Amino acid sequence: MIHLPDDEILPLSMEHNFWTWSAQGKVNPIPVKSARGVYFWDVNDKRYLDLNSMTMCVNIGHGDERVIQAIVDQARELPFAGPGMATRPRALLGKKLAEILPAGLTRYLYTLGGADANENAIKLARGYTGKFKVLSRYRSYHGATFGAISATGDPRRVAWEPTVMPGVVHFLDPYRYRSTFHRTNPGISEDEFCQDYLNHLEEIIQYEGPQTIAAILVESVTGTNGVIVPPAGYLPGVRRLCDKYGIVMICDEVMSGFGRTGEWFAVNHWDVRPDILTMAKGLTSGYAPLGAVAMKPEIADAFKDRVYEGGLTYNGHPISLAAAVATIEVMQQDHLVEKARATGQVMADMLAELVERHPSVGEVRSIGLFGIIELVRDRKTREPLAPYNGSSPEMAAYKKYLLDHGVYQSVHWHTALLLPPLIITPEQLAEGFAVIDKALDITDQAVK
Amino acid sequence: MIHLPDDEILPLSMEHNFWTWSAQGKVNPIPVKSARGVYFWDVNDKRYLDLNSMTMCVNIGHGDERVIQAIVDQARELPFAGPGMATRPRALLGKKLAEILPAGLTRYLYTLGGADANENAIKLARGYTGKFKVLSRYRSYHGATFGAISATGDPRRVAWEPTVMPGVVHFLDPYRYRSTFHRTNPGISEDEFCQDYLNHLEEIIQYEGPQTIAAILVESVTGTNGVIVPPAGYLPGVRRLCDKYGIVMICDEVMSGFGRTGEWFAVNHWDVRPDILTMAKGLTSGYAPLGAVAMKPEIADAFKDRVYEGGLTYNGHPISLAAAVATIEVMQQDHLVEKARATGQVMADMLAELVERHPSVGEVRSIGLFGIIELVRDRKTREPLAPYNGSSPEMAAYKKYLLDHGVYQSVHWHTALLLPPLIITPEQLAEGFAVIDKALDITDQAVK
Ligand SMILES: Cc1ncc(COP(=O)(O)O)c(C=O)c1O
Ligand SMILES: Cc1ncc(COP(=O)(O)O)c(C=O)c1O
Repeated sequence: MIHLPDDEILPLSMEHNFWTWSAQGKVNPIPVKSARGVYFWDVNDKRYLDLNSMTMCVNIGHGDERVIQAIVDQARELPFAGPGMATRPRALLGKKLAEILPAGLTRYLYTLGGADANENAIKLARGYTGKFKVLSRYRSYHGATFGAISATGDPRRVAWEPTVMPGVVHFLDPYRYRSTFHRTNPGISEDEFCQDYLNHLEEIIQYEGPQTIAAILVESVTGTNGVIVPPAGYLPGVRRLCDKYGIVMICDEVMSGFGRTGEWFAVNHWDVRPDILTMAKGLTSGYAPLGAVAMKPEIADAFKDRVYEGGLTYNGHPISLAAAVATIEVMQQDHLVEKARATGQVMADMLAELVERHPSVGEVRSIGLFGIIELVRDRKTREPLAPYNGSSPEMAAYKKYLLDHGVYQSVHWHTALLLPPLIITPEQLAEGFAVIDKALDITDQAVK
Repeated sequence: MIHLPDDEILPLSMEHNFWTWSAQGKVNPIPVKSARGVYFWDVNDKRYLDLNSMTMCVNIGHGDERVIQAIVDQARELPFAGPGMATRPRALLGKKLAEILPAGLTRYLYTLGGADANENAIKLARGYTGKFKVLSRYRSYHGATFGAISATGDPRRVAWEPTVMPGVVHFLDPYRYRSTFHRTNPGISEDEFCQDYLNHLEEIIQYEGPQTIAAILVESVTGTNGVIVPPAGYLPGVRRLCDKYGIVMICDEVMSGFGRTGEWFAVNHWDVRPDILTMAKGLTSGYAPLGAVAMKPEIADAFKDRVYEGGLTYNGHPISLAAAVATIEVMQQDHLVEKARATGQVMADMLAELVERHPSVGEVRSIGLFGIIELVRDRKTREPLAPYNGSSPEMAAYKKYLLDHGVYQSVHWHTALLLPPLIITPEQLAEGFAVIDKALDITDQAVK
């Protein structure tokens, strides 16, 4: 590798790079030099506590030597083979995934990330059912390729309309804190609340026509758009509706999978078995790009004699597959799922304390190490601290305070997300929450 | 990495893997164990001469220690950082690409492969022009994600209609051997032939309305659908039409780039500067998944104050970027572009000889180490040896003979492609052509 002094990393990146999800004139990239455990460092040796697992993906933490070694070994043994070839890591990853996935999901199509995993899930459902519509939810993000962004419900889809993939219909999420229809009945029981949203979905199914609907695609726990943990009966209810109407149930576990919620996959909390489950991020903990679609054998068998029309040059790249095998082993060896569950309880307590201390905290939610702080100007009206799809001086000040004090957290509209690496200790969490606590003093000043 | 005996690689891969572009009951994957230079080996130590650079991507050849070392070093230094971070390989790759790309293409958006490179190119063109239609050609492949497959002209698109991205209009390619309109005038001069196809394109532009057309997207040299080398005036003519009508010219160099044609990029042959150039495959020679969109600064600047709505978790993965930097260095150090040009001449001669010897060879075409053999039942009628989007017993027998004799080549409908690693020697080429020569004895028997 050519030599490049640390202080040239940022200016040279700025010279040639086009930044995704950004206005090019307003980016402020951190020049990252190294990363270990729950921390990363910039070229000035400033340390950041990573409460976002970088891009919500480094579940096992940074710099794990076991995964690095697996990448090194695979690079030396066989860095590349085509998507139609059988390789050692392809064989091994299949075996590993069968160990950890909900029973019945035994066939795997490998992709490069979450977006193309969801696109392939949609294609599989369409091919399997012979139907074409996809129902997904408004508060969802499924990726940025054209098919995935069409399934996405949030404003990132609207940016590309009307030239998105036809055939997607969006429905509402069971988001209790801001449920339009329960504004005047906030005391409704969880069961009744859940039933309202299942009825809503069934109404949509009926009006769209079950004979046209290939799939219902949902994040098991909605991620970026609110860490919306569904009420207990919700996913089982969606499962029943899918069975009733012959619809493929696709659970997007790109963010919620791989221990994030304190189970291997979020659906395990409610003992739900989707027909297809999509994953990425935690699958390799970001060490190499990889996504996957897990499906029940009936779906694979629908393409036994018929060609499945889809694929990419790098589907099942050996280095990525090897990184995934090693990542799963690390999670098993170090009991990271159990750890996430335990530390998740600690985090839930810390979150609850923020509600006590800060009037600008409207609600906190979490499941495992997957949490969110929702900031408001007024607890009674629940007016968000930033407008729909926007920011505000207060949210910007919150974020700046955190970065200035070496805490890396994802801030989305009026919310602040918590997705630390699963290896985080209660002490490290406390370190982060101490800074958050101070930052919330700023947002408290916005409270009416 | 867990131990797995070689003989379990295939059965275990078969148990769990879902194979792309395949009928699951009819796949016959090669269990690849190792690869070096222009060869790879299966678990039974059978050697294959790789005339397809695996998936048309391993341009520098297999097992290059310099690229492997770059991957190893990057994995040890910093295996992952988010897409919004500045990293050493991001800085370095920008610099490298600016050295080798046509002048003016100075801003780079990194993707995971060719499909999402083309999708981002389309988004950039739409955002830049404020227009939405994309014109692309029938005999083109641009990738399998929903947006890229919509731009694709070949049957892989039709499989997913009508739920593809709206707004793409397809036009005809300047494919002289099978030009519908020149059937009765085969002796037309190249200039006149070229002008006919430029007129055709202008007619489409006028009827579609230039005020609606964001981009014209073409493979500089059409790959899978025929290694169609455009007549000299064609791409300059497309450039002029784009300028005349305010349309962004996007050249897809995913297959034709990185020395494949004997120039760094195919457009160099005709001194054409597209507004956007997309790449993948040769960019890392397959050692790690990566694609890129190169654009002129005016396009990037259109997103200076406005957010570019697009991105993936793994855009600009450090390991992939490092692999690309090393790959470009290998190509520079070993003068692989020049080598491809020289060996390409040798291959052109070998191809010409096949025409002499085999009546089933209808036409051969090549540019650099990018070649094709077009097989026919009848040289006069040019009836292809396999039907549109299909195969035939003869083509299957041709392919089987090659595989049996240790030659790995891509066979598409009635054609056989030649895309060996650029490091191939004339002797190794001759080794492959000797087997092809015998295989063509089989197809010769189909000639009427
Ligand atoms: C739930 C969910 N699905 C899909 C995706 C898309 O994944 P990728 O960015 O790897 O394409 C994301 C990414 O944030 C996600 O959170
Ligand atoms: C010309 C061209 N464009 C785009 C692609 C898509 O690239 P990928 O498979 O990396 O998505 C290919 C792949 O074969 C290609 O040949």
